[in-house]
Amino acid sequence: MTATLEFWFEFASTYSYPAAHAVEAAAKARGVDVAWRSFLLGPIFGAQGWMDSPFNIYPAKGKYMWRDLARICGAQGLPLVQPSTFPRGSLLAARIVCANAEARWVGEFVRRVYSANFVRDLDISSPFVIGEILSSLGELPAELMKSAQAQEVKDRFKAQCDHAVAIGLIGAPSFVVDGEVFWGGDRLEQALDWACGKRTIAGDA
Amino acid sequence: MTATLEFWFEFASTYSYPAAHAVEAAAKARGVDVAWRSFLLGPIFGAQGWMDSPFNIYPAKGKYMWRDLARICGAQGLPLVQPSTFPRGSLLAARIVCANAEARWVGEFVRRVYSANFVRDLDISSPFVIGEILSSLGELPAELMKSAQAQEVKDRFKAQCDHAVAIGLIGAPSFVVDGEVFWGGDRLEQALDWACGKRTIAGDA
Repeated sequence: MTATLEFWFEFASTYSYPAAHAVEAAAKARGVDVAWRSFLLGPIFGAQGWMDSPFNIYPAKGKYMWRDLARICGAQGLPLVQPSTFPRGSLLAARIVCANAEARWVGEFVRRVYSANFVRDLDISSPFVIGEILSSLGELPAELMKSAQAQEVKDRFKAQCDHAVAIGLIGAPSFVVDGEVFWGGDRLEQALDWACGKRTIAGDA
Repeated sequence: MTATLEFWFEFASTYSYPAAHAVEAAAKARGVDVAWRSFLLGPIFGAQGWMDSPFNIYPAKGKYMWRDLARICGAQGLPLVQPSTFPRGSLLAARIVCANAEARWVGEFVRRVYSANFVRDLDISSPFVIGEILSSLGELPAELMKSAQAQEVKDRFKAQCDHAVAIGLIGAPSFVVDGEVFWGGDRLEQALDWACGKRTIAGDA
């Protein structure tokens, strides 16, 4: 049986950008499948009293994050352009992923949406931007956007976001393997170790 | 000329514990010197409106952190016992490090204080606990504790904490190389890469 790595991401999340570009190849190299799980950070941050990204609320954190992100992207050979708007609305793209999580094009869709946000500086909440990306993948934008707004998909995505809270997600990206949560793109190899049965826990935790 | 990695740590900080145990050996393997830089997170958190550890203020973050820490310690072969009091007062131990940053025993002192807090579950704010650790290193506790409380050392440590804010430290542990800040024990190898001249930055950041 092939192990599965759930990749939980928010399209507005900066650190999710390099992680989204890395996760599929890294998992494949270890013989692990990727399950694409979009969710929203807004409700999770809101529950902590944050009405904006903590990177905006706490300027020292934001300044550090953009520099750290540039180093991470540099190491991965990814371009980075700090978006003129941050964070951007991710609901439309997130629902499309939720409705098409098993589609063969979903990984590439995710990567292109991130690049639209963090390289092309485009408004990913716009149906025109998302539509262009779907077209570039050879898919039919109008149909996919219509189905992503159907009540059944809205409900399913809402349930997926509630599930994220229930399993203890506190940020993005996160990796989940058999219910074990790993927060941060820098935890990718640890999560893959876990998926491959290398599981070490110290002490009484 | 040997490159230097500044290791900025707070004795109350959980993630600093495995980092403190790893940093010297990892740096030595790369031919890099370690500069031990104690500081306090209290004033930095206080400036963000947090009067306690964010791991206590935000229970979901705290729950995740203890589990993540247990995995990290497990991978490093370090024991971990969740302290009965968290966070513990670190001022005395931090001043001793500031006053003796060049002493040959300082690295081992740092490691033993962390183990006292996160394995032996001892009150590291107690002069008896700190004194026992100094004795175990063959040093003279009374003299070292007296000198660490001298006004000159108090002033020097205050200046070191102000410097931490000035260079943009937002958490512990942090590594600093030529003014470049890396936050988190998981950034150790990146910081050592930087110290060894491997410096890649993406885009316009």
